[in-house]
Amino acid sequence: RSGEMAKLTQLIDNEVFRAYATYTTIVLLKMMLMSLMTAYFRITRKAFANPEDTVSFGKGESAKKYLRTDQDVERVRRGHLNDLENIVPFLGIGLLYALSGPEVSTALLHFRIFVGARIVHTFAYMIPLPQPSRGLSWAAGYAVTISMAYKVLKTALYL
Amino acid sequence: RSGEMAKLTQLIDNEVFRAYATYTTIVLLKMMLMSLMTAYFRITRKAFANPEDTVSFGKGESAKKYLRTDQDVERVRRGHLNDLENIVPFLGIGLLYALSGPEVSTALLHFRIFVGARIVHTFAYMIPLPQPSRGLSWAAGYAVTISMAYKVLKTALYL
Amino acid sequence: RSGEMAKLTQLIDNEVFRAYATYTTIVLLKMMLMSLMTAYFRITRKAFANPEDTVSFGKGESAKKYLRTDQDVERVRRGHLNDLENIVPFLGIGLLYALSGPEVSTALLHFRIFVGARIVHTFAYMIPLPQPSRGLSWAAGYAVTISMAYKVLKTALYL
Repeated sequence: RSGEMAKLTQLIDNEVFRAYATYTTIVLLKMMLMSLMTAYFRITRKAFANPEDTVSFGKGESAKKYLRTDQDVERVRRGHLNDLENIVPFLGIGLLYALSGPEVSTALLHFRIFVGARIVHTFAYMIPLPQPSRGLSWAAGYAVTISMAYKVLKTALYL
Repeated sequence: RSGEMAKLTQLIDNEVFRAYATYTTIVLLKMMLMSLMTAYFRITRKAFANPEDTVSFGKGESAKKYLRTDQDVERVRRGHLNDLENIVPFLGIGLLYALSGPEVSTALLHFRIFVGARIVHTFAYMIPLPQPSRGLSWAAGYAVTISMAYKVLKTALYL
Repeated sequence: RSGEMAKLTQLIDNEVFRAYATYTTIVLLKMMLMSLMTAYFRITRKAFANPEDTVSFGKGESAKKYLRTDQDVERVRRGHLNDLENIVPFLGIGLLYALSGPEVSTALLHFRIFVGARIVHTFAYMIPLPQPSRGLSWAAGYAVTISMAYKVLKTALYL
């Protein structure tokens, strides 16, 4: 058993894999913050999707008026969905990339740009900043993922 | 080749990794059930999003009336999206946590609470149960994921 | 350090794992194409969700008319969400399956059907093809994922 554990520990001891673990955890925690932001806006804007969520604001007809969409809530939800659409590919392709033997410095460059771009994207979406701020930050994360995918296919291609 | 296979097998033989594999598979299968529930409600409520899905219910104008939203369908879809938003972080952070060398008993506690919480969340959303049932089950899964993220960053941090 | 790297390289050298890496990368790249298709339809149909995205089309009231939903945009977005709902389980269960020691030929069969089914699903959704094209391609990918989940649970079950 201790032999097996040693091998697992070696994976997490590898520098590239540790960098992947660190940046992936950070960007997933950032994505999880979107849930809290949605809850915050739903409560402060009194805009809910489920009747059972409005009970504490009154009964019957007086609660029904809180079953509505709010543009701030919808904006956070779009940002959250955009995170899912972009972070899921990073999660999968990034893991395979980390296992494909890149240079530590190259891997760090990829992970840092991706996570930085997603953080900028969130600010650009939530403030919101004028375009093309959001578009460019989205594109930077997208390009990094394509670059990692290219390395994975070059290293591992087996059809 | 057999040497490589042995090493892969050792990964899946590790108890923590086996627990991660088991609970992740269960919670992903649970999430996949949401697709079947959506299809069930779309068909029984006759509420579709695509014109090509309504053809079997009539032609022309008589089919168009089935292109509509239904509150039961929308409820399942919100539950499905909430699953995605919470299970994707568990998938990534949980894998890294399983590789960070936790005690088997601690890891099992994390995985069991998360999967149990997501199952309760689904029942709370679909029945629906009065709040704070759904809110608390969501928070339990969220807290478990934060706890695993803390362990990953403590073990692997490499910025 | 070189010893650790060797071990990581062995993972990516394993044929089943290489096949998983290849097909996962392909299907994630396919999913990423949905973002470009959404952008293409938003721009050509002039249908945006955010006020800051319409500024280049005019100022004030003349820009507001582009804040609208368009059925082509919504169709791509539904296809994208369906990808997320189905590719996320493949990503997680497929990885565990690849580590559970399947025959190379069996694993290739699973990965090829899944990725082929998701590509057919995208064409069936976007053209659109008459049903049950989209339904059957969805079901094929779903069935492959269930089959892999069964193998994972049979190999790794640890509750």
